Amino acid sequence: MCGPALAVAVSRAGGLGFLGPNIKTQNTAADLAEALSLVESLRASSSAISPTTSYLPIGVGFQLWSDDLETAVSAIEKFKPCAVWLFAPAGGQKDLDTWSRRVRAASPGTQIWIQIGTLAEAKGLLSGVEKPDAVVVQGAEAGGHGRAKDGLGLIALLPEVADALAGSQIPLFAAGGIADGRGAAAALCLGASGVVMGTRFLAATEARISRGYQQEVVRASDGAVSTTRTLLYNHMRGTFGWPEEYSPRTIINQSFIEHQAGRPFEELKGLHDEALKAGDAGWGPEGRLATYAGAAIGLIHEVKDAGSVIRDVREQVLERFGVGEKEKL
Amino acid sequence: MCGPALAVAVSRAGGLGFLGPNIKTQNTAADLAEALSLVESLRASSSAISPTTSYLPIGVGFQLWSDDLETAVSAIEKFKPCAVWLFAPAGGQKDLDTWSRRVRAASPGTQIWIQIGTLAEAKGLLSGVEKPDAVVVQGAEAGGHGRAKDGLGLIALLPEVADALAGSQIPLFAAGGIADGRGAAAALCLGASGVVMGTRFLAATEARISRGYQQEVVRASDGAVSTTRTLLYNHMRGTFGWPEEYSPRTIINQSFIEHQAGRPFEELKGLHDEALKAGDAGWGPEGRLATYAGAAIGLIHEVKDAGSVIRDVREQVLERFGVGEKEKL
Repeated sequence: MCGPALAVAVSRAGGLGFLGPNIKTQNTAADLAEALSLVESLRASSSAISPTTSYLPIGVGFQLWSDDLETAVSAIEKFKPCAVWLFAPAGGQKDLDTWSRRVRAASPGTQIWIQIGTLAEAKGLLSGVEKPDAVVVQGAEAGGHGRAKDGLGLIALLPEVADALAGSQIPLFAAGGIADGRGAAAALCLGASGVVMGTRFLAATEARISRGYQQEVVRASDGAVSTTRTLLYNHMRGTFGWPEEYSPRTIINQSFIEHQAGRPFEELKGLHDEALKAGDAGWGPEGRLATYAGAAIGLIHEVKDAGSVIRDVREQVLERFGVGEKEKL
Repeated sequence: MCGPALAVAVSRAGGLGFLGPNIKTQNTAADLAEALSLVESLRASSSAISPTTSYLPIGVGFQLWSDDLETAVSAIEKFKPCAVWLFAPAGGQKDLDTWSRRVRAASPGTQIWIQIGTLAEAKGLLSGVEKPDAVVVQGAEAGGHGRAKDGLGLIALLPEVADALAGSQIPLFAAGGIADGRGAAAALCLGASGVVMGTRFLAATEARISRGYQQEVVRASDGAVSTTRTLLYNHMRGTFGWPEEYSPRTIINQSFIEHQAGRPFEELKGLHDEALKAGDAGWGPEGRLATYAGAAIGLIHEVKDAGSVIRDVREQVLERFGVGEKEKL
């Protein structure tokens, strides 16, 4: 969902934008190359991102269970994104090792970020062959794919992971349930060096999603009851094969409600496919389309540009830590 | 579990200790009066708690679905605890209203704290007849009884509740998953005026629990996989009748593992009752007894006195907010 325009806008505002794995809709080398070429051209037209290094000022996310390693390595070697984000290996730490080695060899200056959602995965990283440059700790509140059954909220997960990785000196980034400066400041207190936001950017001007989807993110509140983790929408969309450890958090709509009531999948799938043709009306409480989003949707009340999102969060964080901290930053 | 000694120790260290609802084992007026008398005598012997007001320097927790209102009101009128904590009404806001009115009438200076775990309950408070003096916002990570199905982690729940109650000016206290200064500081960032800790005090010297239980709290880690919410232990202990919105988080042991594997309840109950006789050996991974605890157990590594717990948390919080904040406090 995060395409070149959004990723570049985030980096331009002082963040680090990542192209989402979904950018590669057909998962072909051509898709990824096209997206990265677009980043290159956007970068060239941006006065705020200085082209003084040979690395692209954005990162690229990979879903290891589905992404092709050779395709990824070729693109990384050619375009040199400043970071890659590795997530959801089918083969656990072994696959993370393979990818990390290949990325390092292809582009030694590209940072390797690895996303985890459990203490066990964090401990696994300590045995990895390549030390990652950053670890993204994803709490159970996160939208989209995360741990299906063994997730935990950031307030308890993050400090325990921080303790486990304390000796490694790897910086941690907190993800999941953070949509404003309050969550960001909290994550820093819990032991993160920075934060990651996904759902908040679904309501960014630059997000490459349907207006119906975006409006639903703005409308919805009370993530505890209005979102759930389910594979239903993946399956209606024809997405199969995620490792069983993962399932996506989505805003609940008619498809899920009727699924819970026992309506057969084939009927739901048919209605889903019709709703796809309806466009924006396919989202919302009466809609039927996948609306992946995190549990902090109740904190998102408006669409704004990515730069404003980042500036607002940064200001709120600085306010919370007082002037003394501000001078240090 | 929190008896007079622990409650007084917490208040002596600058916190506010609450007698747990479980203090009233038979739920009789005699039990509660005995506990409160003990608080009075402890207070008299404490140099640190000034007896300058007529209110007892501790609070008392009530489980509304099971506690007797008349018994509670008599004790409150007689002993004047500085606060009461109302939780788990069978009849929702209506019951909170009834209790609040009666407590106010019996002891106008006693603060009314109300514990919630959902946005809907927070909004319900706005229609209450008595405005509470504090709202405890309990996240899904909490140990013991909390929301069974519609809970949410504090990082997303607390700011949304804070927004909903912003106009009311009621201070919020964060509960659930907080066991050290990192979680406490995070909660303040999220919008809390203070924090509540339960599980951390299970590992306090003054806690009135078995050593086997306490050692298990110290031993256990990785709350995402080593704890769960289940009614099994309630039922083995003969506790029935909690409103269906609630279930307790507990550390997993043999009882739950075999329950999941399909072993009949009557067998589990028999083994549980035998384990009760075994004392401390009844807890631990091979044990069978209820070990209610929160998901932040992995942050608790030692038994220490309640005063040290509070001082350590306070120092950690002040460190995080820098010297500027420290001067303000």
